Amino acid sequence: MPVQPLAGVTVFENDSFVAGPSACLALSQLGAQVIKIDPIKGGPDIDRWPITPEGRSIYWGSLNRNKRSVAIDLRSEEGQELAQALITSPGDDSGVFVENNVGRPFLSDEVLRAKRADLVHVKVQGSADGGPGVDYTVNAEAGIPMITGPTGVEGPSNHALPAWDLVCGQAAVTAVVTGLYHRRATGEGLYQEIALKDIALAAVANLGWYTETLQPAGERTKHGNHIFGSFGTNFATGDERHVMVTAITRRQWSNLVKVTGMSDVVAALERSLSTDFTEETNRYTYREVLEALLKPWFASRTANQITADLEGSGVLWAPYSSLGEVTQDALAGDGAGVLRTLESDALGTMLVGASPIRVDGEYLADEKPTVFGADTAEVLSERLGLGSAEIGRLCDEGIIAS
Amino acid sequence: MPVQPLAGVTVFENDSFVAGPSACLALSQLGAQVIKIDPIKGGPDIDRWPITPEGRSIYWGSLNRNKRSVAIDLRSEEGQELAQALITSPGDDSGVFVENNVGRPFLSDEVLRAKRADLVHVKVQGSADGGPGVDYTVNAEAGIPMITGPTGVEGPSNHALPAWDLVCGQAAVTAVVTGLYHRRATGEGLYQEIALKDIALAAVANLGWYTETLQPAGERTKHGNHIFGSFGTNFATGDERHVMVTAITRRQWSNLVKVTGMSDVVAALERSLSTDFTEETNRYTYREVLEALLKPWFASRTANQITADLEGSGVLWAPYSSLGEVTQDALAGDGAGVLRTLESDALGTMLVGASPIRVDGEYLADEKPTVFGADTAEVLSERLGLGSAEIGRLCDEGIIAS
Repeated sequence: MPVQPLAGVTVFENDSFVAGPSACLALSQLGAQVIKIDPIKGGPDIDRWPITPEGRSIYWGSLNRNKRSVAIDLRSEEGQELAQALITSPGDDSGVFVENNVGRPFLSDEVLRAKRADLVHVKVQGSADGGPGVDYTVNAEAGIPMITGPTGVEGPSNHALPAWDLVCGQAAVTAVVTGLYHRRATGEGLYQEIALKDIALAAVANLGWYTETLQPAGERTKHGNHIFGSFGTNFATGDERHVMVTAITRRQWSNLVKVTGMSDVVAALERSLSTDFTEETNRYTYREVLEALLKPWFASRTANQITADLEGSGVLWAPYSSLGEVTQDALAGDGAGVLRTLESDALGTMLVGASPIRVDGEYLADEKPTVFGADTAEVLSERLGLGSAEIGRLCDEGIIAS
Repeated sequence: MPVQPLAGVTVFENDSFVAGPSACLALSQLGAQVIKIDPIKGGPDIDRWPITPEGRSIYWGSLNRNKRSVAIDLRSEEGQELAQALITSPGDDSGVFVENNVGRPFLSDEVLRAKRADLVHVKVQGSADGGPGVDYTVNAEAGIPMITGPTGVEGPSNHALPAWDLVCGQAAVTAVVTGLYHRRATGEGLYQEIALKDIALAAVANLGWYTETLQPAGERTKHGNHIFGSFGTNFATGDERHVMVTAITRRQWSNLVKVTGMSDVVAALERSLSTDFTEETNRYTYREVLEALLKPWFASRTANQITADLEGSGVLWAPYSSLGEVTQDALAGDGAGVLRTLESDALGTMLVGASPIRVDGEYLADEKPTVFGADTAEVLSERLGLGSAEIGRLCDEGIIAS
């Protein structure tokens, strides 16, 4: 059993969609106890696609695992007080709260901190001004869709992956652990806010992509599947598969030229064009020529032949898989990697991800499904000392899930 | 001045490309001192695009800020010993190391931990088996490119954004701070590894997208710019701009119908199709019909008119910007947001991102450029107590940058 660095920590969560829930999932995987407080009928993501034929949300069930689930009527005054009491309940390594609320003043930092001064409070927002924002809108505002997608297609191309939600979720994990570290060092709490739009703008800026537009060459245009500034693109195989082949370093490039038997042709081309393809800049400039030259090698081989030829060649490449192929490969595998099966009453066999952070080479993988509302009574009893009569009354009055 | 939660911590970095450098940038922004150790002529990313007309890397300069830069000949035995001595040099909040090395046994965890037992060591890898991997290859292997891009275009579509590198970088920040927290609690170090491929597989699994393929409906197909499972897509405006419009919640949908004057049409459609568009599932099923119905409203208005009409309407939307437009807007703004200008001798005016994690509502923003190798002598003097004669000899012998 590897070290679980956050063992003993209790985190309360009141949020929805990807960022906050993925953050708290990661915290649970580092060893924290996560108690998720939801509105009594579920948050706005409770039925989010993908869903099973019975309408159960695979999305919710995948992002919410290893958590204890508490369902409370957050519109009732008594429900609001219960939520506040839980979040600020005593305990050295408790008093941690991750949320993405808009317009729930009873969960504001001011109100909660008055009840527990050393709260570690992380709020995920759309925009830093308090306005809304989701991955799709902040991606549009950050400028990424205008350089995404095939070169021939005009207009923006959204990414399918909610990349900003995922980055934001990881930043929220950092904020929680930073807050815990700070509190352990100083005894003081911390209130941290993270806006999804800021996550996107800062990340693109830190890649240098905004500064790039201030250069004489101006904005980059769409470059399709090509790697910007170096060499790499996808090639179709003879059996209608696709492979991503990259040559970012000099060695990767020389290995690619060698294995495809192109040494003489590439040398002749370099001489006639007075260029040097060992420089990645030149590979990028002539990317379409190089792609066209290499294309027949891939088109005349099956994916299996290509795998055999590239194995051990020092070329950096990968086959493209579909989501279903990744799934089937993982199910057929030894289950020792980051992907694990998990049986859920509601969702059947799930394929879930262990914590990708390995400790001493081992995956932190101790997975269990979360059942919406199932831990309400137990958590209220444990954390607030409520007796069964009181819990019965709260159920009867519809203030908590029964 | 907001709290800098990692003030006093010293992190050593020996890595390249996005994940490690972006992690250490974020650590610097949380208050840590970051000392970046590079090979004497720079790592493989030292000239990475985008570049200035003079060939200076905007990429390297953007990802490496607020860091002290030490350049050492890591192929020489004496250089290797210097690197080891720096990384394991004493100090309560020192002994933190972020790296992505392959084949540098003198920087292995075993070797370093023998010199400093409480090391917090985070290693970024391509694949968990030690094999290589970059954003482009792990994205292909995770299955995302097959569902990215326009519906009419066959084959994979890579994302332009190095999303996995960014998520991996944030996970590395988490690992560092988790290690610091663990060390403060127990006195013990921690060795954590994070593979880029695991980051991708785990994240996609945690969205439920692999489990989805096990359902009777099977794999999802490309859905272009539409939001999967709800309603949202891009619309062209009358002046050839694009806007991303979403209606994920019931309220967002009813607001969108109202502001576009479609209430009667939508109600008639619901009756005739026996459906209910207040359910996001039904909005997704009929997404093309709804898109076609709404399209003329956007096409008959300029972006400015649309902005005026949607302002305050409760519709969740955003205009698409290009990278250059984001840049110009930020330069014209008040500089109080997450994007900041930074003047660099090598790169001119840069637009950089402050830490998106705000503490008590304030951005942690104290930016300065890193100059490759410039801090070598000073750091060796401070951390290892080397005198000027010794440093002079190391320069003369080409073991450190002069």
